[in-house]
Amino acid sequence: MNTKDIAAPAMDYARVFNQAIDRLHAEGRYRVFIDVLRNKGAYPNARCFAGHNGPKPITVWCSNDYLAMGQHPKVIAAMEEALHDVGAGSGGTRNIGGNTHYHIELEAELADLHGKEGALLFTSGYVSNEATLATLGKLMPGCIVYSDELNHASMIAGIRNAGCEKRVFRHNDLAHLEELLAADDPAAPKLIAFESVYSMDADIAPIAEICDLADQYNALTYLDEVHAVGMYGARGGGISERDGVADRINIIEGTLGKAFGVMGGYIAADQVIIDVIRSYAPGFIFTTSLSPVLVAGVLASVRHLKSSNVEREGQQAAAATLKALMADAGLPVLPSTTHIVPLMVGDPVKAKKISDVLLAEYGVYVQPINYPTVPRGTERLRFTPGPAHSEAMMRELVDALVEIWGRLELELRLAA
Amino acid sequence: MNTKDIAAPAMDYARVFNQAIDRLHAEGRYRVFIDVLRNKGAYPNARCFAGHNGPKPITVWCSNDYLAMGQHPKVIAAMEEALHDVGAGSGGTRNIGGNTHYHIELEAELADLHGKEGALLFTSGYVSNEATLATLGKLMPGCIVYSDELNHASMIAGIRNAGCEKRVFRHNDLAHLEELLAADDPAAPKLIAFESVYSMDADIAPIAEICDLADQYNALTYLDEVHAVGMYGARGGGISERDGVADRINIIEGTLGKAFGVMGGYIAADQVIIDVIRSYAPGFIFTTSLSPVLVAGVLASVRHLKSSNVEREGQQAAAATLKALMADAGLPVLPSTTHIVPLMVGDPVKAKKISDVLLAEYGVYVQPINYPTVPRGTERLRFTPGPAHSEAMMRELVDALVEIWGRLELELRLAA
Ligand SMILES: Cc1ncc(COP(=O)(O)O)c(C=O)c1O
Ligand SMILES: Cc1ncc(COP(=O)(O)O)c(C=O)c1O
Repeated sequence: MNTKDIAAPAMDYARVFNQAIDRLHAEGRYRVFIDVLRNKGAYPNARCFAGHNGPKPITVWCSNDYLAMGQHPKVIAAMEEALHDVGAGSGGTRNIGGNTHYHIELEAELADLHGKEGALLFTSGYVSNEATLATLGKLMPGCIVYSDELNHASMIAGIRNAGCEKRVFRHNDLAHLEELLAADDPAAPKLIAFESVYSMDADIAPIAEICDLADQYNALTYLDEVHAVGMYGARGGGISERDGVADRINIIEGTLGKAFGVMGGYIAADQVIIDVIRSYAPGFIFTTSLSPVLVAGVLASVRHLKSSNVEREGQQAAAATLKALMADAGLPVLPSTTHIVPLMVGDPVKAKKISDVLLAEYGVYVQPINYPTVPRGTERLRFTPGPAHSEAMMRELVDALVEIWGRLELELRLAA
Repeated sequence: MNTKDIAAPAMDYARVFNQAIDRLHAEGRYRVFIDVLRNKGAYPNARCFAGHNGPKPITVWCSNDYLAMGQHPKVIAAMEEALHDVGAGSGGTRNIGGNTHYHIELEAELADLHGKEGALLFTSGYVSNEATLATLGKLMPGCIVYSDELNHASMIAGIRNAGCEKRVFRHNDLAHLEELLAADDPAAPKLIAFESVYSMDADIAPIAEICDLADQYNALTYLDEVHAVGMYGARGGGISERDGVADRINIIEGTLGKAFGVMGGYIAADQVIIDVIRSYAPGFIFTTSLSPVLVAGVLASVRHLKSSNVEREGQQAAAATLKALMADAGLPVLPSTTHIVPLMVGDPVKAKKISDVLLAEYGVYVQPINYPTVPRGTERLRFTPGPAHSEAMMRELVDALVEIWGRLELELRLAA
């Protein structure tokens, strides 16, 4: 059929796109990016370009550079050296010109960190999850993936793109997971995908118990340790190291952009798994490899955190102090045993308002966390105190929050 | 059903993975990454860790750091400054702590480069293609994507993940594209996705004619300029700038990891399109943003190439010389009007063999290009001469190739 001479009813693209944006405004969740520059050496202080009065100093409370390793002298020195030694970019994919000695060294270092035979670098933690899960699913016809309901968007994307069956189990709910495993064909390939530290609720998965179920039902295990690597375990190997269960996890996934302070992602696993992902995953194969400058920085960071506990201890102490101060003040802080401090608001417009007032009037930067990052109705502020946040900063912060809570007529829950 | 007490027939995961690897060995396309470190300031020279005798100097002929911008003093200086000013990583997603003034400046610079209202950064060109195409498809229910059969894996992934209808048109074939467009419902949303310079065949799309068809059939246009940005057009805006058709393309996509010499990807488009992708694409939202160190380097690179033609002219001259020398020697070089020089072999084992001999005996590094990067039977070596490759280097290379061609009893096509 040739419709060349028929006037096509106009498809109005701009209208479709504008409507998509209008929906966000209507729900109060249109995002405006705040314009900041952190000051190296002065973190958590930063400059803000948001106003018209030029840069003014602020305190950052929501960075995922959890241990301030992005400003560590060893990391900076390693990056500077690589920059002068080999230049800015890798110039190619891992297979075509973009494999450097730094990449090989870092993969060995990460494999060792998790006690695995091998490791594989990706351009980000997002890509490592998406590419690995999508490829595993495709390589195992009939595979069923069991996914914690709070899994990160990058895992959800990988599982969907694998095109395999998916069962969602209630968050950290072993009984529900077992129910789902038991209901499926015992001969079907199975993969349980979950996180160790859940970054928005700040809780931790029962890894050993999930591994027990995996053994019982002959399933592979895939663990996202993005919010734990560098921060837990004697050498920073994550919760799986802390709990002594790393050898029971088939694939450990991590990021190089949070506690390690730089950028990139990886998996660690048996050599044959590394080899299939390396050989079959489009998201690994068809992309320029990580800049050697970044890789050099991560190498220094991972090596430092393998032997130094100061940062981890400082972070845990800071988190405990902030949680106690907030609770004492009656602020609705979510109880947690991790380094993340979620303060519940439950409304996207109010969460944004509190954040705006903190920035404008108190020089405090904490981002409101709204849907789709968290479920609607659970909007919150998420604080990530680290070794560089002092108790004085925390007291100032809590005072500011109490004042704003009152101003917005939000509830304080004071102990009797 | 509870199968807990039934012995599950063992699903043998290792066997499945080992078989996947065996398939690659059997086809002669198992990839071994060569271990290189380029020497900044000495590019295209590099060190190689492949042997046991320690680093030895080699010449790199397959880098996509096409203009050697990854070693440009302005780029290195900008990265060093950013490293000391703000540190290694961004510390967060664009929305949560990871938006810096560098990111905002670079987006403005890239929008200007392509004469568009806005631009959006991604962690790689792969992610920019995947995230943008997948999101566009989802936002336009009933959308049909028309995709050139040689489109890059990242575009294919994005189109598949969009879950919409897809029509594949024969490479650069306007008649076929029109046939497909004409056969579909005139009211359906449509998107034509293609590249400007095809990196493996080294040819160029008829952009203006594709835009004519897009106008006629009311389709959006999406152009991957990954192998053209920085290298074509008076300011490096790509083939769409050179041909004066950038304003006819709805979305221009590019990489920061090839001619710009660093790492990352982007799109440039109308503000509303930038805003929907920014607001809806998981691959943009849920990932640590590009390290400000990289962004600072790209800023310097883009700005330099906007005003300097030396690199582009040097590259075109080098490509013309190498193609002429190869053709004169009877080597089966693919005729092309671009900077890429494909030398056809047609067999994965021989392509690898030639590459191995070049490296071991001649200190020349050029990667064999095998399936799935190119179709089976079209295996090749792909040379990317740049402004830093001298004519003496080229003569040495061609002499080496002629010797190996004879040794492997491959055919030379000498002019009568
Ligand atoms: C649980 C989880 N997994 C993966 C990622 C992605 O890691 P990256 O930022 O390195 O892309 C994130 C956050 O960004 C995350 O929170
Ligand atoms: C045509 C094309 N598009 C996109 C990409 C991906 O870009 P990046 O390397 O920045 O991920 C590549 C190659 O890597 C490519 O060749």
